[in-house]
Amino acid sequence: MPFYKITLGYDGTRFSGWQTQPNDRTVQETVEHAWTEITGESVRLTASSRTDAGVHALGQVAGVKTDSLLSAETLLNGLNAKLPEDVVVHLVEAAPAGFHATRDAKQKRYRYQIHNDRRRPLLERRYVWHVIQRLDAAAMHEAAQALVGKHDFRSFQTTGSKRQSTVRTIFSVNVTRECSRLSIEVEGDGFLYNMVRILAGTLVEVGRGRRSVGEMPMVLAACDRGVAGQTAPPQGLTLLDVEY
Amino acid sequence: MPFYKITLGYDGTRFSGWQTQPNDRTVQETVEHAWTEITGESVRLTASSRTDAGVHALGQVAGVKTDSLLSAETLLNGLNAKLPEDVVVHLVEAAPAGFHATRDAKQKRYRYQIHNDRRRPLLERRYVWHVIQRLDAAAMHEAAQALVGKHDFRSFQTTGSKRQSTVRTIFSVNVTRECSRLSIEVEGDGFLYNMVRILAGTLVEVGRGRRSVGEMPMVLAACDRGVAGQTAPPQGLTLLDVEY
Repeated sequence: MPFYKITLGYDGTRFSGWQTQPNDRTVQETVEHAWTEITGESVRLTASSRTDAGVHALGQVAGVKTDSLLSAETLLNGLNAKLPEDVVVHLVEAAPAGFHATRDAKQKRYRYQIHNDRRRPLLERRYVWHVIQRLDAAAMHEAAQALVGKHDFRSFQTTGSKRQSTVRTIFSVNVTRECSRLSIEVEGDGFLYNMVRILAGTLVEVGRGRRSVGEMPMVLAACDRGVAGQTAPPQGLTLLDVEY
Repeated sequence: MPFYKITLGYDGTRFSGWQTQPNDRTVQETVEHAWTEITGESVRLTASSRTDAGVHALGQVAGVKTDSLLSAETLLNGLNAKLPEDVVVHLVEAAPAGFHATRDAKQKRYRYQIHNDRRRPLLERRYVWHVIQRLDAAAMHEAAQALVGKHDFRSFQTTGSKRQSTVRTIFSVNVTRECSRLSIEVEGDGFLYNMVRILAGTLVEVGRGRRSVGEMPMVLAACDRGVAGQTAPPQGLTLLDVEY
């Protein structure tokens, strides 16, 4: 039974996240439905990350085990013909037997975007967090460097999550500004529930001057969600890509 | 009675254009309604251009004659507080007596954006025209240079328009590519009905190789709409700014 790896993008605005839930429009269900329309076969997709409601993806990866004999090219074109305008499949490739998009992911890259201006965002409003007060991007970048490396990120996880280990490795964090657009780009071997959004919310407090640049090691060491900052809103977050 | 100049942006996706029409959601009506909510006064806005359904604006300019004694700053903040998320007012300024946003405009700048890729556009899908076939941006730019200057642009006007003169001056046209994003930026002293969209549609035919780079002078000289190319779809068009 062949395995396929599907690379896809979606605009999370009108989705209740990746994972299928009764009575909600989700990406998983939308793509599985398109798959069934093409192949006649019911499948279950697994994704590298179950992104939350409102979170976007440009390079999400999903795995599927299938009986279909359709070629990767036919599946790609068929899916795109059936999918709504807020989901696009970029690539369908044969994957090694047993491929599991969640378990096998080695590295993920997320971007969190902030519209840092007195004026409301307009054309980009579904893809940014609007922060009016001027943020010090250099201070945010400097503060973020303390997060790079292998750490227990429990402080940056929504309470009640049931992950076995809260240790993750962040390979890089970069905070950059281009006019009123501030971007936080994070690469790591994996992320806890809401981790990038809590990290963004905490760095914004540094950018506002409400937290000092040097306090990130203390926040990490506390292993206490209450010590980190607010959870930034979902629409600023985009899963950029996943490596296997 | 003071005159004000209002600089505003809007996402044209869910508007039936600028101009008020019965039973349609328009930008004019939306902004006039917000004005009335703040001041208690009914006003009539005039805009530099009555953009069509689906066309966007980043720097549209509207003029208003008012009895209100509210300051420009209060009007600005009040309007933004009342307006929906797809309209933003950037600036409210006192204007000279008799200011008329249509008549007094000296120069306008439009941008037409094309998503030139085999894949569908995703996050940018409301703001681009999707053209799959690879376009030759350099050929389009070269062809466009024949449009610069003072010409009768009748070939680039939707038939049935009732403008008195079809002579306009284009100051510059630039066609540029950045990855899969192709932009056509045009500056001129004024534009006929659908002129930028017909110009974009015609240049795309040059970019596809269906028209030669050198035939623009012939298209202009014909003074016949049938000789120019198709009208490009509205969502790729954005009014960038207007000078007075």
